[in-house]
Amino acid sequence: MSLDNISRSAYSEDHEAFRRTVRQFLEAEVAPNAAKWADEGIVPKDIWPKAGALGMLCPTVPEEYGGLGLDFGYNAIVDEESAYYGRATTGFSLQSDIVTNYIVSYGSEEQKKHWLPKMVAGEVITAIAMTEPGTGSDLQGMRTTAKKDGNHYVINGSKTYITNGQNADLILVCCKTDTEVQPAWKGVSIVLVEADREGFQRGRNLDKIGQDEADTSELFFNDVRVPITNCLGEEGKGFIYLMSELPQERLSIAVSAQASAQRAFDDTVEFTRDRKAFGKPVLDFQNSRFVLADLKSKLQVGWAHLDWALTRLLKKELTAEEGAAAKLWHTELQWEVMDKCLQLHGGAGYMNEYPIARAWRAARVTRIFGGTNEIMKELIGRKL
Amino acid sequence: MSLDNISRSAYSEDHEAFRRTVRQFLEAEVAPNAAKWADEGIVPKDIWPKAGALGMLCPTVPEEYGGLGLDFGYNAIVDEESAYYGRATTGFSLQSDIVTNYIVSYGSEEQKKHWLPKMVAGEVITAIAMTEPGTGSDLQGMRTTAKKDGNHYVINGSKTYITNGQNADLILVCCKTDTEVQPAWKGVSIVLVEADREGFQRGRNLDKIGQDEADTSELFFNDVRVPITNCLGEEGKGFIYLMSELPQERLSIAVSAQASAQRAFDDTVEFTRDRKAFGKPVLDFQNSRFVLADLKSKLQVGWAHLDWALTRLLKKELTAEEGAAAKLWHTELQWEVMDKCLQLHGGAGYMNEYPIARAWRAARVTRIFGGTNEIMKELIGRKL
Amino acid sequence: MSLDNISRSAYSEDHEAFRRTVRQFLEAEVAPNAAKWADEGIVPKDIWPKAGALGMLCPTVPEEYGGLGLDFGYNAIVDEESAYYGRATTGFSLQSDIVTNYIVSYGSEEQKKHWLPKMVAGEVITAIAMTEPGTGSDLQGMRTTAKKDGNHYVINGSKTYITNGQNADLILVCCKTDTEVQPAWKGVSIVLVEADREGFQRGRNLDKIGQDEADTSELFFNDVRVPITNCLGEEGKGFIYLMSELPQERLSIAVSAQASAQRAFDDTVEFTRDRKAFGKPVLDFQNSRFVLADLKSKLQVGWAHLDWALTRLLKKELTAEEGAAAKLWHTELQWEVMDKCLQLHGGAGYMNEYPIARAWRAARVTRIFGGTNEIMKELIGRKL
Amino acid sequence: MSLDNISRSAYSEDHEAFRRTVRQFLEAEVAPNAAKWADEGIVPKDIWPKAGALGMLCPTVPEEYGGLGLDFGYNAIVDEESAYYGRATTGFSLQSDIVTNYIVSYGSEEQKKHWLPKMVAGEVITAIAMTEPGTGSDLQGMRTTAKKDGNHYVINGSKTYITNGQNADLILVCCKTDTEVQPAWKGVSIVLVEADREGFQRGRNLDKIGQDEADTSELFFNDVRVPITNCLGEEGKGFIYLMSELPQERLSIAVSAQASAQRAFDDTVEFTRDRKAFGKPVLDFQNSRFVLADLKSKLQVGWAHLDWALTRLLKKELTAEEGAAAKLWHTELQWEVMDKCLQLHGGAGYMNEYPIARAWRAARVTRIFGGTNEIMKELIGRKL
Repeated sequence: MSLDNISRSAYSEDHEAFRRTVRQFLEAEVAPNAAKWADEGIVPKDIWPKAGALGMLCPTVPEEYGGLGLDFGYNAIVDEESAYYGRATTGFSLQSDIVTNYIVSYGSEEQKKHWLPKMVAGEVITAIAMTEPGTGSDLQGMRTTAKKDGNHYVINGSKTYITNGQNADLILVCCKTDTEVQPAWKGVSIVLVEADREGFQRGRNLDKIGQDEADTSELFFNDVRVPITNCLGEEGKGFIYLMSELPQERLSIAVSAQASAQRAFDDTVEFTRDRKAFGKPVLDFQNSRFVLADLKSKLQVGWAHLDWALTRLLKKELTAEEGAAAKLWHTELQWEVMDKCLQLHGGAGYMNEYPIARAWRAARVTRIFGGTNEIMKELIGRKL
Repeated sequence: MSLDNISRSAYSEDHEAFRRTVRQFLEAEVAPNAAKWADEGIVPKDIWPKAGALGMLCPTVPEEYGGLGLDFGYNAIVDEESAYYGRATTGFSLQSDIVTNYIVSYGSEEQKKHWLPKMVAGEVITAIAMTEPGTGSDLQGMRTTAKKDGNHYVINGSKTYITNGQNADLILVCCKTDTEVQPAWKGVSIVLVEADREGFQRGRNLDKIGQDEADTSELFFNDVRVPITNCLGEEGKGFIYLMSELPQERLSIAVSAQASAQRAFDDTVEFTRDRKAFGKPVLDFQNSRFVLADLKSKLQVGWAHLDWALTRLLKKELTAEEGAAAKLWHTELQWEVMDKCLQLHGGAGYMNEYPIARAWRAARVTRIFGGTNEIMKELIGRKL
Repeated sequence: MSLDNISRSAYSEDHEAFRRTVRQFLEAEVAPNAAKWADEGIVPKDIWPKAGALGMLCPTVPEEYGGLGLDFGYNAIVDEESAYYGRATTGFSLQSDIVTNYIVSYGSEEQKKHWLPKMVAGEVITAIAMTEPGTGSDLQGMRTTAKKDGNHYVINGSKTYITNGQNADLILVCCKTDTEVQPAWKGVSIVLVEADREGFQRGRNLDKIGQDEADTSELFFNDVRVPITNCLGEEGKGFIYLMSELPQERLSIAVSAQASAQRAFDDTVEFTRDRKAFGKPVLDFQNSRFVLADLKSKLQVGWAHLDWALTRLLKKELTAEEGAAAKLWHTELQWEVMDKCLQLHGGAGYMNEYPIARAWRAARVTRIFGGTNEIMKELIGRKL
Repeated sequence: MSLDNISRSAYSEDHEAFRRTVRQFLEAEVAPNAAKWADEGIVPKDIWPKAGALGMLCPTVPEEYGGLGLDFGYNAIVDEESAYYGRATTGFSLQSDIVTNYIVSYGSEEQKKHWLPKMVAGEVITAIAMTEPGTGSDLQGMRTTAKKDGNHYVINGSKTYITNGQNADLILVCCKTDTEVQPAWKGVSIVLVEADREGFQRGRNLDKIGQDEADTSELFFNDVRVPITNCLGEEGKGFIYLMSELPQERLSIAVSAQASAQRAFDDTVEFTRDRKAFGKPVLDFQNSRFVLADLKSKLQVGWAHLDWALTRLLKKELTAEEGAAAKLWHTELQWEVMDKCLQLHGGAGYMNEYPIARAWRAARVTRIFGGTNEIMKELIGRKL
């Protein structure tokens, strides 16, 4: 059982060689510990440098900043294999697929030189703090402020649902450097906040439906002072930066969704082949076959689309609407696959000891995070 | 927020008066402890006598056996209110709606006199053990045996997914007293096993997706000896007994499903009215209104159907197929409501601290237990 | 195959006796001609007096105006049987369930005395003209005007999708008697227009997807002069009148939807029992059974709800939102049943010679007319 | 409005140049006559040579048999453009995408020399007769026989749902040359029957839900004598031949489904942009935008998959299961798009004068023909 049987078109042989490296790492380092990490609600920091050493973190970082200067296909390989095997490395994806790009694209030379090599090496874990209590996907409505005081910003506010919240050494904080300007989005900036700054405080590691091992957390900022040079790119451009990185971010979610759906499907074919009911394998009932045949068709369609989208992203052709459509479609597919596969497990599906139960719980958030699927429809619909 | 605004036709004023009693009990005794019990994975035994004192347990037990001799409408009231408020008393439902009927209908005079008063009082907690590891809803395929040895049965086998598994003082064990007879169902009997019998052992309190407070468990029987008089009704009639009690059992599931769906809906209307996005309440978006309007329509339809089915059950007219249809339809509705309501909560919906998250997790099992919804379709389909 | 096997609660024995009369009429007068009428695109006028003679038209008209003074249950019986057998009498429903109420509730004594007896007898066929080209369900946006000129209105405008458009002797025209007033709905009135008025012209009998026998048409009004006494009720109250009659109107649609869905289901069970594929009846495939079992469950739920709603309507308790919910839910159910049943017919389902093909085509409009289902959601959603 | 804005990967510039030729033909020759042909229930034969002259018929026929020796991509271009513009040339697709392959792959040299040039030129119209009354997609259950009598077969039986039934000059008749052999499929052969053979009779041009212009018909064979040399390929291999051509056949259906869905979508965006309701364009309602955004996402996914499948087919890599999955998925998508787009048209959608009404009616058969979608699931499911 692996992703090797899927006919793909987006990847080169080098990508596939890298896939084998990733898979070995997941089998050796992640699989044996996944249950433990899930119980603890966090992945230990020491796994990061190990992944870094294999080139699994931030593969697109240019060589001059300590990276391998590879394309996003390498990120996607890590996402696919993690989703298929480990399900315990969403933190990697956040750092490699999302945060990296902000710093590479908009960071100052100093910021890049300081942070990127450490991120590549897994010495620094990053987070990006967008959502606030009570605001959801509405970035323009944020209330966290960064007020200028001489050469410093003084940051106040609170954030929630922050991936890597407990582990993060560096947080990209989305905040308002100008609360007066109209339209409101012109006041949004992204400011780098080191986790050891005074006034910064981590809140609860949130108790979630799933993704138990992810340290999704609240973060609090009480008069946190950081130098003005910690602003990422230009003041007031934060919202534009956030929008510009979305296609890749959303495709990254789609990649993981598709691969985890494939895993649930593969597991379920195996389960229903082994499990007997009324004297024959569950798979031999027409209903089981029909459900699985329908899902298999959809997965086939999904892989074709994913390769199309990846190819377009690599050629810088993927539009914001196309990325949103990918996030929407693949996460809806993922959910359909998860829920139907769980049902085919019968009572076992409800037990956390079965992989489908954990995968199903983990999957429920993908229709919500990275912008809810309703937001995706809004974005696509506006362009009609 | 309560079920009082729903226009109902199945209940009398006495039923509604009893509803208020139940609600007070849930508010006073269950609500303050629900979170704790969920963490502990079990409801403490001492809540049972309190419920018993209020007539909440086994209301249909005839007065001669210590009961109130009421109709199933009183059971349904407990189910509705528990589902709407407490969500922590699935064990009651098992005892009142399911086990009671077996003993009342098929028990010997001695069994009734011994067990029913204690069940009514909450001094004895019962379970019924049908499912075995690897067999699911296929009762004919069961492998637990009760072999006769003089005046005793010697029971061997294992059961799983048993509600009240940790708390149970008395277990109705479905087993084969004859493993040769064809068709196989003619070998099935129900045998009462007291929890203090030697060779009986409780297994794990299972780690489930939801219904955290329910002590759903594995049970093991190793050469457990019980007197032949512990057989419920006639030997070899167990399968027939199981089939005959199904309409009520399934309607009981439907009742809880409908009420918990109504709660999720009511919670979500409130949540979306309070929560703002992009400067206005989430409820003011047409998509939110459309989703909720559609669910409200379905809930209206559901209550009408539930009353129809309850009325038929009280008149002993509800057929097995109609009961199966109720279980199928209401649990599918419940799921649709839960999942759409969770989505309308955005990120909050994924956090266990919000009621919708727990309700959603709890609801996932109802399409599976009491016979999977695929079994329901099979049962209904066979009669076409 | 009939509706007699459904367990109902809304009807008395008198209702059921009337049902047999209706059924005989449909079998004798409608069934033999249905195909011909479908080809001709119209039901001949001479069927109306025959139906009238049996009390099938406008049963709720008070005795003093030539009616039988019965309750809406009799209307519903005609709707159910027509939908189940004839499928060719949507014109009756328009007159009995909708137009009648306007005249009974808001007509002047003179209007009632003049029109009602003829409507009951089937000597006069009526229509109500709401929709205009390009406006759909938006009644406030109507552009047809009735300008006062002495004792007369001069009516100008055009209407479309008008049931009974070719046959109608009397049209209730929704129009603006005041185009200035704000809010706009306060300018809406309903004016009676006799079909022989100068300047009134029937447009095309529209070529529709289905309901071939219904003479749904365009109507044109060019300087049509009618006396002011032709206004129904008060000037400027038309919109309020329209809103107040909606629950019954919508329930009428729900009734027909449910009954026609039941017929499609019954036909399909029979078809799949007779039709063989791969050596066995189509019904013996698990997929067929599952699809039909699921639909049977939903139909069971639907009948229970319909009776609930009818009972409430008869007690004047059915609210506008409940009526909208009924229209929404039953027409969506109807569609699901139609489409799945057609699919189970295979290639035969695509051939107009099979009843399922005509029923399926006819059904497509019910999610649209009487206010689209989107409007239903809007209405229900606004009240949350 | 055209297919030019879709980003594609399966086609070369030559393909796209050919697309323009096809489009011009459709605009000049088909569009002006489509309504007339629909009314008449048939496309006149004289359009075929015109299409043939432009290389639109059977483009894959090798040059030695009068063809252009092109790849299936050219067929797909004709399918796409026909589906997007003309909707009146399903007969072409049958001849080019399906019949051609049988003759090229399995025909004798004599058969190829005789028939292929005429098929390319549009001088001969072909049909393939599989389905029989009462058997549907079950080819092994066919009852048409070809009994050997000296050097001739004597064919008896009847067929139905035969595309090009009225126009066909040559029919590939699937029949049993051996009714005894087990398994039954080993008795199936394909025999060429010229339409002027004695005993061959065309039945009714069937009255269908849609595809009004397609002369789908019944065919009767009463002691039709044809020389043994009319057998296509080997006797008893008919079933194998049918199976081997299925991936292309099914992809051809998928191609048309996707393109017609795109057209319905494009039409609906335009319609909802123009049509006003409650004072604003229908497209400005969030519900409309959400529905269309969701469909747009699915269409994006569909095109990516179609190109993947076409590319695999051209490389001879597309498996039978993948072809079945494509047929299943794209026709289900087509239906979802059609039905939701019709709904967004409101009352207009129900009127045959609007393109969406005809497209919707036409689309209903694609989930049925070419093997029902249930058969597709069976095929895919068997290989799990």
